[in-house]
Amino acid sequence: MSSYVKIPSHLKPSDPQGSDLLAQERATVTFDVKKLTLFLYGKKNLDRYHEILRIVENDPAFDKTNVYFMGRNELFKHALKKEKRLVQLIKENEWKVEQIQFAEWFLDMPGPFGVHRGMFIPTLISQGTEEQKKEFLIPALQYKILGCYAQTELGHGSNVQGLETTAIYISETDEFEIHSPYLTASKWWIGGLGKTANHAIVMAQLKSNGKTYGPHLFVVQIRDMETHQPLPGITIGDIGPKFGFNSIDNGFVLFDHVRIPRFNMLSKFSQIKKGTGEYINPPNDKLSYGSMVLVRAIIISSVRFALGRAATIAIRYSAVRRQFVDKEEPKKLKDGRVVETSILDYTMQQYRLFPVVAQAYACIFTAKAMTDQYAEYTTMSFVGDYSLLTDLHASSSGLKSLTTTMAVDSIEECRRACGGHGYSSFSGFVKFYQDYLPNTTWEGDNYILTQQTARHTKHFAQFEFAYLQLFKTFRKILSSKGAEAHAFQSEKNQMAYILQYLNDPNHKCTATTNLDFKNPELQLRAFGHRAAYLIANAVDQIDNHNRTWNSMLIEINRISRAHCQYLMIRNFILAMQNSRQSEDEGLRMLHGIPSLKEAMLSICNLFALHTMEKDLGDFMECEYLIPSQAKLLKAQIYNLLKEIRPNAVGLVDAFLIPDFLLLSAIGRYDGKVYETMIDWASKEPLNGITLNVNPDSDVLFRNEKSYEIKAKL
Amino acid sequence: MSSYVKIPSHLKPSDPQGSDLLAQERATVTFDVKKLTLFLYGKKNLDRYHEILRIVENDPAFDKTNVYFMGRNELFKHALKKEKRLVQLIKENEWKVEQIQFAEWFLDMPGPFGVHRGMFIPTLISQGTEEQKKEFLIPALQYKILGCYAQTELGHGSNVQGLETTAIYISETDEFEIHSPYLTASKWWIGGLGKTANHAIVMAQLKSNGKTYGPHLFVVQIRDMETHQPLPGITIGDIGPKFGFNSIDNGFVLFDHVRIPRFNMLSKFSQIKKGTGEYINPPNDKLSYGSMVLVRAIIISSVRFALGRAATIAIRYSAVRRQFVDKEEPKKLKDGRVVETSILDYTMQQYRLFPVVAQAYACIFTAKAMTDQYAEYTTMSFVGDYSLLTDLHASSSGLKSLTTTMAVDSIEECRRACGGHGYSSFSGFVKFYQDYLPNTTWEGDNYILTQQTARHTKHFAQFEFAYLQLFKTFRKILSSKGAEAHAFQSEKNQMAYILQYLNDPNHKCTATTNLDFKNPELQLRAFGHRAAYLIANAVDQIDNHNRTWNSMLIEINRISRAHCQYLMIRNFILAMQNSRQSEDEGLRMLHGIPSLKEAMLSICNLFALHTMEKDLGDFMECEYLIPSQAKLLKAQIYNLLKEIRPNAVGLVDAFLIPDFLLLSAIGRYDGKVYETMIDWASKEPLNGITLNVNPDSDVLFRNEKSYEIKAKL
Repeated sequence: MSSYVKIPSHLKPSDPQGSDLLAQERATVTFDVKKLTLFLYGKKNLDRYHEILRIVENDPAFDKTNVYFMGRNELFKHALKKEKRLVQLIKENEWKVEQIQFAEWFLDMPGPFGVHRGMFIPTLISQGTEEQKKEFLIPALQYKILGCYAQTELGHGSNVQGLETTAIYISETDEFEIHSPYLTASKWWIGGLGKTANHAIVMAQLKSNGKTYGPHLFVVQIRDMETHQPLPGITIGDIGPKFGFNSIDNGFVLFDHVRIPRFNMLSKFSQIKKGTGEYINPPNDKLSYGSMVLVRAIIISSVRFALGRAATIAIRYSAVRRQFVDKEEPKKLKDGRVVETSILDYTMQQYRLFPVVAQAYACIFTAKAMTDQYAEYTTMSFVGDYSLLTDLHASSSGLKSLTTTMAVDSIEECRRACGGHGYSSFSGFVKFYQDYLPNTTWEGDNYILTQQTARHTKHFAQFEFAYLQLFKTFRKILSSKGAEAHAFQSEKNQMAYILQYLNDPNHKCTATTNLDFKNPELQLRAFGHRAAYLIANAVDQIDNHNRTWNSMLIEINRISRAHCQYLMIRNFILAMQNSRQSEDEGLRMLHGIPSLKEAMLSICNLFALHTMEKDLGDFMECEYLIPSQAKLLKAQIYNLLKEIRPNAVGLVDAFLIPDFLLLSAIGRYDGKVYETMIDWASKEPLNGITLNVNPDSDVLFRNEKSYEIKAKL
Repeated sequence: MSSYVKIPSHLKPSDPQGSDLLAQERATVTFDVKKLTLFLYGKKNLDRYHEILRIVENDPAFDKTNVYFMGRNELFKHALKKEKRLVQLIKENEWKVEQIQFAEWFLDMPGPFGVHRGMFIPTLISQGTEEQKKEFLIPALQYKILGCYAQTELGHGSNVQGLETTAIYISETDEFEIHSPYLTASKWWIGGLGKTANHAIVMAQLKSNGKTYGPHLFVVQIRDMETHQPLPGITIGDIGPKFGFNSIDNGFVLFDHVRIPRFNMLSKFSQIKKGTGEYINPPNDKLSYGSMVLVRAIIISSVRFALGRAATIAIRYSAVRRQFVDKEEPKKLKDGRVVETSILDYTMQQYRLFPVVAQAYACIFTAKAMTDQYAEYTTMSFVGDYSLLTDLHASSSGLKSLTTTMAVDSIEECRRACGGHGYSSFSGFVKFYQDYLPNTTWEGDNYILTQQTARHTKHFAQFEFAYLQLFKTFRKILSSKGAEAHAFQSEKNQMAYILQYLNDPNHKCTATTNLDFKNPELQLRAFGHRAAYLIANAVDQIDNHNRTWNSMLIEINRISRAHCQYLMIRNFILAMQNSRQSEDEGLRMLHGIPSLKEAMLSICNLFALHTMEKDLGDFMECEYLIPSQAKLLKAQIYNLLKEIRPNAVGLVDAFLIPDFLLLSAIGRYDGKVYETMIDWASKEPLNGITLNVNPDSDVLFRNEKSYEIKAKL
């Protein structure tokens, strides 16, 4: 591969070499990293991982070597090429969802067919009748029809009930007329719409006989199947450049009285009767909650790998990167020469990075818990029992918000902890962060909008305020005597902390040494007490002081956070307490290897105590912790950093994020940081250009094939 | 200007219109916005502002309309064009620093001549002899020589003493030999080096007669003045794409035994004698501290405009953006129709955004204080009195770290508070954030490295650990009796809080109502008490418990933060307390207009109390606040949000960030958010391309003039 600049080949980095430093790190790890990897993936998935990685890594269509140099057009073109090749591989190898997920993860580039696969097809499956599946799903599965999912509008995101696009039933022709009455009705942000899709599932306000029935879904052909040009009455475009996701054509569409057959309204649950225009209600509102929970559970499940990826780069680089001689504890080479200290040895760096490792592991156990709960709910829903849904709904909303905000903040923290080089695209952080960022906004904005929606819940609302549920539970326990409250005594009930609080609202932390903070019961009690205290206060304000909903939003946000932190810590602690007889094969293995379990316990403790320290004010405001205990808590955190230090590289290696995915000069497995930085820099296309720097001359580049952008804002 | 997509011209956004909503907001403002703007800029600067804006806004070379669509090559080319035009204007209009600063701010694109103007020329002025100025400075001022400042290396950033590039004096030829012995010695991140500069000021380890004298500065010609090609023995390149700053050619350079005349060592303070190679020491170490302080003071001064810019976009958009009907307090149009509530009316949104406004204003007063202090120091240094330098040095380091981290986090908070559209480049946040980000790293990484450097202070070290100074002061007060401590009793001494703490270490907050939290003495006492408590603890740990420096880093970071928060709050409060007889003309005006002063007081209170709430754990750990007071504090914050609400748009309008700078569809002065979003989207160049989406076909774009990137990673 060609370079624009020839780097002198005899030069190497000054000693010690990055590869030696990482080898030393790997020698200090106290547990078998391969076993931890096996626990993380499970045998079956690990086999799939290697099978898929081998294929995509060696396919020229998936070559990543120019990605960081690409502008928008090139990036999009590249993504389209990848998509086509991926479709070919899916067909050739008959890949199922599991394999496709690995491939998409390794490719690491959101593509223009992504929404077709991830939203268009699943929506046809869940909302379409058998006839509709024949008409739309079969060709969609063959990639003849390419679809998108057009819900959000220029003027409306979270408030789905406020969408402005209309679908009016015209009984004369037995058609719907899809129309955008305002500029703000333009569908907006729709993945795959801008350039790719020829069909859209459009969410529009259903109107019939002068009545409005709220948002419903309609299949609309938007582009000509031959020319790929927009059909008459339809205005389509790409919405322009974004922070990330520039390999996707997020698009907009305006409809000018566009007619579609009545058949095209997705009618598995509700429909309009031919001729009369009579509206048939959906049988059960709750069904659509289930799929929202699933989408959030998938997002939550992916957080661990985002965190693991960020921590992998930052920790490996921090082991290689040396800066300053620590005169009190100087580092020496074998030959006795004093060298600068790895920045991973500085406590401040550990304090920034190790909690991210802990978060990554914590997310594993919460993902497992969510998946188990969802499976249990599904089983029960088959016999018409939806009792688990409310809890599941509440926790999935809050956990989606908590974990994705945590991930975005931690990725950026890891990037900044890499100093100057973290700002280079070659760090592997830049595109990664930019593409991950929308997780805080989509499927429910992590802030204000999830709180606003309590009073707008309908079967099509994508967001509801789940924390009403916590208040309901609180009031129920508060008012119930004996038998009813009894249900919350079970340790299996994740709301048991409310009863515990009501039984002893003045409970105090019992820690007298910093070691006491390693006690899991103490940790759990702390988080439960604090969450229940916040709920109790809010309920009191609402019930007894006439507070408006709007005036409570800040408090409610704190409650959401507190409740979900409790859940995450509970999930981690329960997994650590499970005996070797656990039902889960992975946990049985983990509990059977003392060195591994011990390493995990340090991580579990750090997650709980660091989370507590970040919100220390809460724990002291509810009088659970007193000032002297806050000091002990901090002392224990510093101890844990020491405990974890020898395992730092092992803990991130275990995530097995391949170099092909990392695409990072500074986070590579082999530690060849500086060699790679300069090698990649030599290939920057700008290095092929020579300037004319004379300020009086209009000539800018002396040797450029120039190209122009025509349009202007 | 041409579009790729024709948007139906009859469509407009649904009511109410953004322009009407902003007009309503502006009608509720309680003070004269123009007067606040006058206070912010001062008369003279405001005149300059308008003069420069008029020129750059109307110059075709500075047209910004394609910026968001540009890839790296185009962006760099565009920046070079701007630079040339700017040089022409500087020459034509004889602009001085003040005018150039306004122009650069409005242009808002880091350019390839930036380091020439901002570092190369100033270093020649401060470090060069008169002969050297004749040789290098004169042609540099004429832009005949174009320079860069090559300090940082691939392997070394903050630890300047560890730089690997060498400059060995060769007495035989009276030359220095500049050499890069390792790959890690490659200069790296050097602005303007990659493609532009023909000269570099190179920092290298000076060696003479077998002795090493640490890093010194050398002027090295690096490119041929005719061909612009690198000179023999010199390898140069651009370091590749970055998170932002892609309009700049940050570069690398390797030297292979490159000879330069002895004359080229910048010798105002230290030099090598001809022939003997004898080293002449610099007369005074402290001189170079002064310029470091100045650079940091400039960074601190610019923070307010970064925060003001972010707040302007987010608050205007939040006023225009409506989502959900608040049933308890529904909003109505004049005709009685109920409409959705502006998201600015939701308390959660206020809680996210108003503190950013408060931060922006707080930074004004801290910038003023820094500037005044620096001026005082300069005056005194002329008569050889450097006594103010240590304090100034300590506060400038910590404040640079505190304010830039605050700014970056707040810009991102504002962006996320704009929901989905915040992710679009058209929001005006994306490039802005990306280009602002390096402020947390350059001129002293905001974290670990500033702490590490205490023991490496030499006259060339760019970073030192300033907080040793706090410990020294603490020990001094602790051990001194009577007269010596007396010096710290003065309210003018910004370390007086330490004495106050030592006199009453068990002092408690006296607040019994939430109104008490508006008391400025109480606020100041709180921040002083907490900072002194942290210092007292750290000194005790170091002096009495043998703690290593490394084990204290996390605590030291907290101290830095606490001390600088105290300074910021003190600066704001003192300005608010200054009477109408203040020496400062602006403050006199502000104190003479009650409505304006009242608005500022709300902002001052919010800044103090919100800052306190964010670190509530600290204030409770030092037993200054008890739990019931924490509740009162929060209640007062919610009151302040209400106080500030009617003035929200006025407070950001006052910053007078022009639309030309904002380049934001959602933050425009006129509120035409949706019209602009769709207009700009229609101009996305990708909209000129038609795809071939058939997965079996290799043709991707049907109508593209394709271009390729040749090199691969």
